[in-house]
Amino acid sequence: MDRALEYLEQNRQRFLDLLLDYLRIPSVSAQETQHADARRAAEFIRSYAAGIGFETRLFEGDGLPTVHAWHAKNADAPTVLVYGHYDVQPPEPLELWESPPFEPAIRDGVIYARGCADDKGPSLAMVLAAECWLKGEDALPLNLHFIIEGEEECGGDVVHEFLKAHRDDLKADALVVSDSSAVAPGRPALCYGLRGLAAVEVSVHGPARDLHSGFYGGAVQNPATALARLVATLHEPGGRVAIDGFYDGVRELDDAERARINLRPYDEAQFLRETGSPSTFGEEGYTVSELRSARPTLEINGIFGGYQGPGMKTIIPASAACKITCRLVPDQDPEAVTAAVTRHLEAHCPPGVRLEIQPHHGARAVLTDPSATWPQRAARALEAAYGHAPVYTREGGSIPVLTAFQEILGLEPILIGTYSPDERAHSPNERYPVEDFYSGIRTGVHLYAGS
Amino acid sequence: MDRALEYLEQNRQRFLDLLLDYLRIPSVSAQETQHADARRAAEFIRSYAAGIGFETRLFEGDGLPTVHAWHAKNADAPTVLVYGHYDVQPPEPLELWESPPFEPAIRDGVIYARGCADDKGPSLAMVLAAECWLKGEDALPLNLHFIIEGEEECGGDVVHEFLKAHRDDLKADALVVSDSSAVAPGRPALCYGLRGLAAVEVSVHGPARDLHSGFYGGAVQNPATALARLVATLHEPGGRVAIDGFYDGVRELDDAERARINLRPYDEAQFLRETGSPSTFGEEGYTVSELRSARPTLEINGIFGGYQGPGMKTIIPASAACKITCRLVPDQDPEAVTAAVTRHLEAHCPPGVRLEIQPHHGARAVLTDPSATWPQRAARALEAAYGHAPVYTREGGSIPVLTAFQEILGLEPILIGTYSPDERAHSPNERYPVEDFYSGIRTGVHLYAGS
Repeated sequence: MDRALEYLEQNRQRFLDLLLDYLRIPSVSAQETQHADARRAAEFIRSYAAGIGFETRLFEGDGLPTVHAWHAKNADAPTVLVYGHYDVQPPEPLELWESPPFEPAIRDGVIYARGCADDKGPSLAMVLAAECWLKGEDALPLNLHFIIEGEEECGGDVVHEFLKAHRDDLKADALVVSDSSAVAPGRPALCYGLRGLAAVEVSVHGPARDLHSGFYGGAVQNPATALARLVATLHEPGGRVAIDGFYDGVRELDDAERARINLRPYDEAQFLRETGSPSTFGEEGYTVSELRSARPTLEINGIFGGYQGPGMKTIIPASAACKITCRLVPDQDPEAVTAAVTRHLEAHCPPGVRLEIQPHHGARAVLTDPSATWPQRAARALEAAYGHAPVYTREGGSIPVLTAFQEILGLEPILIGTYSPDERAHSPNERYPVEDFYSGIRTGVHLYAGS
Repeated sequence: MDRALEYLEQNRQRFLDLLLDYLRIPSVSAQETQHADARRAAEFIRSYAAGIGFETRLFEGDGLPTVHAWHAKNADAPTVLVYGHYDVQPPEPLELWESPPFEPAIRDGVIYARGCADDKGPSLAMVLAAECWLKGEDALPLNLHFIIEGEEECGGDVVHEFLKAHRDDLKADALVVSDSSAVAPGRPALCYGLRGLAAVEVSVHGPARDLHSGFYGGAVQNPATALARLVATLHEPGGRVAIDGFYDGVRELDDAERARINLRPYDEAQFLRETGSPSTFGEEGYTVSELRSARPTLEINGIFGGYQGPGMKTIIPASAACKITCRLVPDQDPEAVTAAVTRHLEAHCPPGVRLEIQPHHGARAVLTDPSATWPQRAARALEAAYGHAPVYTREGGSIPVLTAFQEILGLEPILIGTYSPDERAHSPNERYPVEDFYSGIRTGVHLYAGS
């Protein structure tokens, strides 16, 4: 393994340049105008893997392709799948970026670019770790499959189709996912839980066009008002979700789990600095750490209708809409939650408007056993790469595709958290320290050794 | 007067071409990027008035200039002020226009362009009526002042400054405003009432940036949710405004006024076709005609926060905002209403967010006596021009500047309604029948005769 690590040291600049090139591709999966760019990102990672000796394919389906790159030459060695994604979140609002989201900048040793932490940097690191073995040691001590998809941020189906189509080729001992955060700079995490997801788009339609609020105001329902009244029914004043059936199946936290979640010290002043929120806010009876990781939520991700420009425009908007996502915990069923939300919206929609609801893909929460064989190997790799044992964490985010790996391949994910927790994934000025990138590669080198 | 009317007939095409040129200038006052164009529109109307023999000035203040054009050569003749505006509403949403808003199109005898009805067509018609007298009869039978401002749609101060600065030059017998609608195509209106206006912009601020809804969801207040909850407190479920003090001073409708308002037959099917609303909605105990013209309202003109693009983006928005305008009736005080709305918002803002409120200019309602001398002259001019006596109407819209004419010059407005009521002012595909334009000019010719 020494020569693999040495190869890494000799190629630091080239690896970094490669990542910056990858980050220049605006592979936003949620925006169809960017799909040609997303395909460029897929081809970028596929051709790089092919260049270092992997067999590769672009799996095409009804959406953006999944990149499959495999190096499986030793039937006696263990087989590990590594999952990542080449697509990124939309960069908006653009005006809040200090440097353009797709022109990566390095300031004080930190890369700033959309997708640097989530997930181009961490997933590319796992590929480069394989290169370190193949070029430094002339061999890879295990069979490795990279599955790098293009619809993680938009909930597409192609990777599901891929897993179904290739289930027999993908028999493996472990699934490694490098798409979550460390607990502090240089302090890695091994994440044993993630929240699931349910999502709906809601729109409320009134008049056929924006109406003059003077000529018509007072005699028709205002869709923006109606939507606000509807949204206001979704929570109790204290923050608990007020939807019948929403909490069905929620596994209450036992004392052991509460202790594990609250092991990481919580610093309120630090939390408020980190978020910029004026205060914390949430369900009573739970700590902030519990609320963020182990309790279900319903969030308005966006709300819009009518005039948004400067000054005033005296209209009644023709329609108003909002985007809703729920974070789920074991054992909530995403489809049941979506159905409960839909029923609630239909039952509470004010009169005088027409309601439209569009459900999206959901995902179950993940909760795994961190003491099993491969999670422990991953923990040792993290410790070797960072000089610190990982902290076992339960995260509030979701990686919906993991449901498919569980259901189709029977694999529980091992989530290695390598990027700094202030990475601003999904926010402007997403950041990724250059050292996290190299530590991520080192982690892969150690993990592939299987020791 | 026959030669004035003959001159109109001889110049129909030229007058129409002139209007179309005027409509090509995107003089949107609410958008600063359009202010150079707004100034072009001011110069367009000023230079045209100068060309037909008026003395003119552009009155500059802190905003867009007011055009003043006057022809006052006979101290024994009566003096009439004519008010209009060269600015227009923002054209958005652009995608709903069948032809571009600033490339006027004529389809089936109807002009389609932003500002054609509100108010470039009707106000230009009053100028051209003066030209008909000056060129057709070689004289104008009265003293005439045009006051064409550029901030009607954005509530600016310049015309107020102008009225204060020139109050002694503007002593007049009547104020005529051609900025309201007929009751039906070819059936003119004389409007004796308008609603007033109060306006505030509201924003709710939470985290310093959009947050990942997985990492932070459940532990901070969501500004979009908080804004929706706040907006939901503004009305009772039936539509009545739920703000303490909002209805202070509201003059209840007596039987005579109710009879006058409801004289125009109300056709619910026609109303729903016209608006496209699925049903009517409003305070109990009032007819739709009363609700639209003689009851106060509070409308959300726009609401926005977070992600609005295609697909989903799993964030907690940093902030959310809405634009609110209230329509007022006699004897509500705009400042008192703004204060009541502000107090309510502050008292009802959910925890965990910071509230910002920006009040805008308000305006009192107008309610005048239609049986006085000049309103009756205007009524006769409308009857002569259209072949139908005008209907006396009370409108729900607002012309905030009229408060200034009342307070500074002591003039009650005479509102002549010449454009068809399906003109879609403030909406996409604003329309103005070509014949309304010519009837408007004829009305001016008759009105200036003073008979």
